[in-house]
Amino acid sequence: MITKQVTLDHGSGGEASHELVHDILISRLDNEFLQQLDDSAEVDLSGGRFAMTTDSYVVDPIFFPGGDIGSLAVHGTVNDLSMQGAIPLYLTLGLLLEEGLPMEDLIKIVDSVAHASQEASVKVIAGDTKVVPKGNLDKIFINTSGIGSIPQGVDVSSHNARPGDQILINGDIGDHGIAILTSREGLDFKTGLISDSAPLNSLVSSILEVSSRIHVLRDPTRGGVATALNEVAGQSGVGIQLFEDSLPIAKPVVAASEILGLEPLYLANEGKCLIAVAPQDADSVLSTMKMDKYGKNSRIIGEVIDKNPGRVLLKTKVGGTRILSMLTGEQLPRIC
Amino acid sequence: MITKQVTLDHGSGGEASHELVHDILISRLDNEFLQQLDDSAEVDLSGGRFAMTTDSYVVDPIFFPGGDIGSLAVHGTVNDLSMQGAIPLYLTLGLLLEEGLPMEDLIKIVDSVAHASQEASVKVIAGDTKVVPKGNLDKIFINTSGIGSIPQGVDVSSHNARPGDQILINGDIGDHGIAILTSREGLDFKTGLISDSAPLNSLVSSILEVSSRIHVLRDPTRGGVATALNEVAGQSGVGIQLFEDSLPIAKPVVAASEILGLEPLYLANEGKCLIAVAPQDADSVLSTMKMDKYGKNSRIIGEVIDKNPGRVLLKTKVGGTRILSMLTGEQLPRIC
Repeated sequence: MITKQVTLDHGSGGEASHELVHDILISRLDNEFLQQLDDSAEVDLSGGRFAMTTDSYVVDPIFFPGGDIGSLAVHGTVNDLSMQGAIPLYLTLGLLLEEGLPMEDLIKIVDSVAHASQEASVKVIAGDTKVVPKGNLDKIFINTSGIGSIPQGVDVSSHNARPGDQILINGDIGDHGIAILTSREGLDFKTGLISDSAPLNSLVSSILEVSSRIHVLRDPTRGGVATALNEVAGQSGVGIQLFEDSLPIAKPVVAASEILGLEPLYLANEGKCLIAVAPQDADSVLSTMKMDKYGKNSRIIGEVIDKNPGRVLLKTKVGGTRILSMLTGEQLPRIC
Repeated sequence: MITKQVTLDHGSGGEASHELVHDILISRLDNEFLQQLDDSAEVDLSGGRFAMTTDSYVVDPIFFPGGDIGSLAVHGTVNDLSMQGAIPLYLTLGLLLEEGLPMEDLIKIVDSVAHASQEASVKVIAGDTKVVPKGNLDKIFINTSGIGSIPQGVDVSSHNARPGDQILINGDIGDHGIAILTSREGLDFKTGLISDSAPLNSLVSSILEVSSRIHVLRDPTRGGVATALNEVAGQSGVGIQLFEDSLPIAKPVVAASEILGLEPLYLANEGKCLIAVAPQDADSVLSTMKMDKYGKNSRIIGEVIDKNPGRVLLKTKVGGTRILSMLTGEQLPRIC
């Protein structure tokens, strides 16, 4: 019996659990794997290289402008695989539910998982649901783990940036962070901004077809563009220089960041990809990105340099240079 | 800087996160995959059939007699893969931490993950850590997802039980459930009982070598032996008959169950495997199980029958028969 709220019974492994799995989950995420209802899913991976990843999502609020924790959990893991140059194939879905969660909310979130999976052409092939007593977690947390295949010849890694590489991004910076923050209770100024949460596997596939000289793919989620590029600079042993003039940042993000005392380059993004590509391929990659649904506002925002290894520098509009360090301290808990 | 408690900074994606990942995680789960520190791990799966699974662990208390949430998370996912006949290869580790969790506790748990992974010969190849503000979850929850390879010729599934199959189990029933319950605050009677939490991949490999007629492998976790066998009976369209006389249940479990009003056949197990095997192979499988570290008290406890499809029957000691239905209601929240 599907009740109006999630109850502890729904996590018991008994009858109520089975009904939840059948009526709420399987019916929405329907595929030949889940129907088996065995403890794990069997997949046929015929040779080659594969990427595997895991991510938990604890975003607050669970519904936000531009998405919800369900779509975010699919996009985030699809993107983690894509950043490896992998074609995402299969996801697992681990639901952690608080007793009393409105069933309506769970259904909306599972629908959203189903929809996002379809758009990204991935299948949810195994799942797990745990319910904890009221007060033991806040509403719902989701883990998605995933596996994808890496096409022959693809070699992208945060270790591969080389001096001369151009740094590209597929659109505006900081939308997710501000969309979440301004949708929280008590921060009720309207920006009209929506999260950029989106699957990037299609965009990544397109650019990997156009260029064999893409060295780095990185999604600037928690910690933002500055932190992600610091990781790349550190791991590749290079410097990275950004041009403030070229950074695409929407006006509401600039305005909200000023009011809240935040720096857009440290805000989380959930549908953005940083790319380091050899200079001779930068233009063709850029124009390919612009043709993608999620790349219309793509830009070249910086370049890899051989000075200042491990550092990210910002060339400011007024001609100065400042160091962008890694994020220290937590700006925004539960941003994803 | 590793502080005495987990702080929100540790989940920021910034510097403190990096220190946590390096100093607490990578140093303990060291392998060539994690060292890459990319968003996902690349694995080489050369052809064949693979099983994939996910499970979240919310056990309370996080340290209990016979294990902790870390070892449990590894054993549980290793066993889910094993129940598919798969050889577990790779795990991902998703940590959800409450702000203020003592760092000492986290370290003990990660050590326990490392130790359990070594024993089960699996590698943790990707991870994710989120920290939520105090009060947003209770201490620590863990998701482990895993992938394993299925050897040629193996065909085990909850759909495959056939009349005549013997039902075996590798030891005592209900230890985990009672160990957890009696270690909770307020239930302070000493049973001396420890959880059976253990990796079963080695036992499963051994019996799959001995018999090609193993039809079903199933771990009776949440919902216990009765619920797991109800699933098998339903999915295979057969009846299953258990002999009360043959059920291995330790005296403290019987006693504690009586006091607490619980039924051992519905208690969770975390190191047990139910097996349905063709009758001609039952003895050789049983003796192979008994040679395994985790199978010393193995028994034949029942058989598959062609009557009563979808039902599990218990032949009682006094000669009666009663129906064991699926678990209804939640006996024990946060048992795993």
